[in-house]
Amino acid sequence: MDRKIVLTIGRQFGSGGRDIGQRLAASLGFGYYDKELVTMAAKESGLCPEVFENADEKASDGLAHAFTMGLSYMGMFTPHADILSNEGLFKIQSDTIRNLAEKESCVIVGRCADYILRDNPDCLSFFIHNNTEVRVQRVLEMHPEITVEQAKNFMAKTDKSRAAYYNCYTNKTWGNAASYHLSINASVLGIDGTVKYIQHLVKTKFEL
Amino acid sequence: MDRKIVLTIGRQFGSGGRDIGQRLAASLGFGYYDKELVTMAAKESGLCPEVFENADEKASDGLAHAFTMGLSYMGMFTPHADILSNEGLFKIQSDTIRNLAEKESCVIVGRCADYILRDNPDCLSFFIHNNTEVRVQRVLEMHPEITVEQAKNFMAKTDKSRAAYYNCYTNKTWGNAASYHLSINASVLGIDGTVKYIQHLVKTKFEL
Repeated sequence: MDRKIVLTIGRQFGSGGRDIGQRLAASLGFGYYDKELVTMAAKESGLCPEVFENADEKASDGLAHAFTMGLSYMGMFTPHADILSNEGLFKIQSDTIRNLAEKESCVIVGRCADYILRDNPDCLSFFIHNNTEVRVQRVLEMHPEITVEQAKNFMAKTDKSRAAYYNCYTNKTWGNAASYHLSINASVLGIDGTVKYIQHLVKTKFEL
Repeated sequence: MDRKIVLTIGRQFGSGGRDIGQRLAASLGFGYYDKELVTMAAKESGLCPEVFENADEKASDGLAHAFTMGLSYMGMFTPHADILSNEGLFKIQSDTIRNLAEKESCVIVGRCADYILRDNPDCLSFFIHNNTEVRVQRVLEMHPEITVEQAKNFMAKTDKSRAAYYNCYTNKTWGNAASYHLSINASVLGIDGTVKYIQHLVKTKFEL
């Protein structure tokens, strides 16, 4: 198949969006990219992965200065010093995402991929959300050492940070229905049911 | 079938949400309620339909006073004068929606039905949006006498008003993905394709 289909997934923390993305990619035989993008962007740019990790899905703020100072302190060679702002890192990661979208059909989680690929007619964007109690339960399964209250705070903080990142780099609003082709509460059909339902849309749309 | 399934539809103006709701209801053999709710609420309350029409999907503001004054000016008998605020009208319409949901499987467009029926396990909520250019085209087909600019203004104003109404009477945000079970851009599959896709969810969820 010459056509490369890209499915982007935005998600509330604890919603199951990552699981859904992984299973969707596996079921369609597509590549899956989430944290992997950080390493790829680092590799392509020649910058160290930590720089991207620190800025990963974080909105631009005073950190840009800290990065530059940190790199300078570490005595690193900085051939891209002029773009070592969060905007610069976003630009590099955007190129990585665009390159990826040209090379293979894939599922990309987060990182404003829906906005970066907004002009790609073979890209469909999804947003996964879930009932609060289900999200809390999922977070507690990942972090059994924390309390319900802490899980709720963690969810709120992570989503706030994701929203700030998305709203900073796109002209859209994180979590707003109109920002995505399809948004779904994963509780309606469960994780596997949601994967099948999204797969149905992809197969119908692209006549797979 | 003893179980009454209710599908609520929120929609951007010009998105095709109303068409989708009508066709969805027809395809499932469900009742369809949109403007009809105004007449029903009026009938059930004994108030004149105009009172509900004027307040239909409008947020509470100084209008409550104007309604009361208007009724008084018309010399109408006002047995419910104490609830003749927009909140009172919302309450009456909410009762109409709840009664309806108990009586028959149906599709209800707008009027915060998703919020009113939030505790009904047999209720699924949808939000329909669409690409701006498609919406403009649809509005121009309905109103060939207006310009593209006027159509855009009309869309923006109507959606602003719908959002104000929804945000005023619910603890959710109009158009926010998390406020609905499913949100979809009707351009992905077209109107009929979207109807089929939603129908697929309903049939899967409720094992129809």
